Amino acid sequence: MKPLLHDYWRSSACYRVRIALHLKGVDFDTHVVDLAAGDQRSEAWRAENPQGLVPMLEIDGHRLVQSLAIMDYLDARHEQPPFVPKDPAARSHVLAMALVVACDIHPLNNLRVLRHLKGELGQSQEAADEWYRHWVREGLAALEAMAAPGAGRFLAGDEIGFADICLVPQLYNARRFDVPLAPYPTLARVEASCLALPAVAAAHPDVAREIGAKEKMA
Amino acid sequence: MKPLLHDYWRSSACYRVRIALHLKGVDFDTHVVDLAAGDQRSEAWRAENPQGLVPMLEIDGHRLVQSLAIMDYLDARHEQPPFVPKDPAARSHVLAMALVVACDIHPLNNLRVLRHLKGELGQSQEAADEWYRHWVREGLAALEAMAAPGAGRFLAGDEIGFADICLVPQLYNARRFDVPLAPYPTLARVEASCLALPAVAAAHPDVAREIGAKEKMA
Repeated sequence: MKPLLHDYWRSSACYRVRIALHLKGVDFDTHVVDLAAGDQRSEAWRAENPQGLVPMLEIDGHRLVQSLAIMDYLDARHEQPPFVPKDPAARSHVLAMALVVACDIHPLNNLRVLRHLKGELGQSQEAADEWYRHWVREGLAALEAMAAPGAGRFLAGDEIGFADICLVPQLYNARRFDVPLAPYPTLARVEASCLALPAVAAAHPDVAREIGAKEKMA
Repeated sequence: MKPLLHDYWRSSACYRVRIALHLKGVDFDTHVVDLAAGDQRSEAWRAENPQGLVPMLEIDGHRLVQSLAIMDYLDARHEQPPFVPKDPAARSHVLAMALVVACDIHPLNNLRVLRHLKGELGQSQEAADEWYRHWVREGLAALEAMAAPGAGRFLAGDEIGFADICLVPQLYNARRFDVPLAPYPTLARVEASCLALPAVAAAHPDVAREIGAKEKMA
């Protein structure tokens, strides 16, 4: 049975997992959990995943959640290309860059948080947008400083890995909110290297949206 | 040269790293970055760590940041006790539980975010506290559901690991904000098992505060 990705095209965390699956050459089916329509709060989806989030990957008889934990699984099961270096310090550096995105930027800026700001906290759209841009700027500045000394084609040399997989969706997302990317030349250059790879292009939200639309029709 | 931990007693991320160091039996010195006093925004500290965050660990000639990436390094360099199982799916499950804390709860509730809510967004202390409790409740409910089926003495059986190391500081923190923990019996039971270990007790914020005060006097 093919792996099944519970996916939403615009979710950064789903986008990471799609990149990882394509890089490892793992063919998969898609089930759409439409976050914009509120599918994640449905009883049906909560029964599948109590946290009510995406992505979830059904693979090899397991149900895996949390994008970085899914990427770790794929990396353990499929050797090429490796997502982290073998040297413990180099590996820690790659993970640290991935975690700047996954812990210090993305969690503050995903859909459920922006909705909470505008709903429960009564903030304007403008205030929510500025909140978004604030945390992106803070995080990307840190990431640029961490990456600049060691970056090659990718964030940690010339092999794509964990940190790059987190970077691509974050920059896609930043553009949606009109965050100027000029202050982060290393990140912009690495993003271009990533997007030039067919595996990364195949994971793009526009492609995922189209696949999702077909799945819903079927 | 002994490893040097740049630490703040009340930071959850620092607390994780202290637990990890003590569990691995790594002796270390402490340098206090006093977040309450704003040390993290000083030019001196930004020169050390561009992100201006703690923890940072200087070890074996490396400067490591991001608590989970530091824990990964310690686990790679010091075999016992292992922080993750060897089986890829079991490992992914442990990481997923750790990431619920590290990505879905903690980033929304740390000091810089609560300050931003009260400062730039003009929220009351009460609204900031309720924001805090909201994300803790969401995250702990998810973690309880994920952990309950497989928990033993610890979150993923009878060995302490990555997820437990993230749980202990999160529950310490939740209590400070008066979040009722009765709905999470598995988490509370596992926390008690953790706190009974001398290595975990040695990492407690009260101990760290005392060590920090001595370091500042020296």
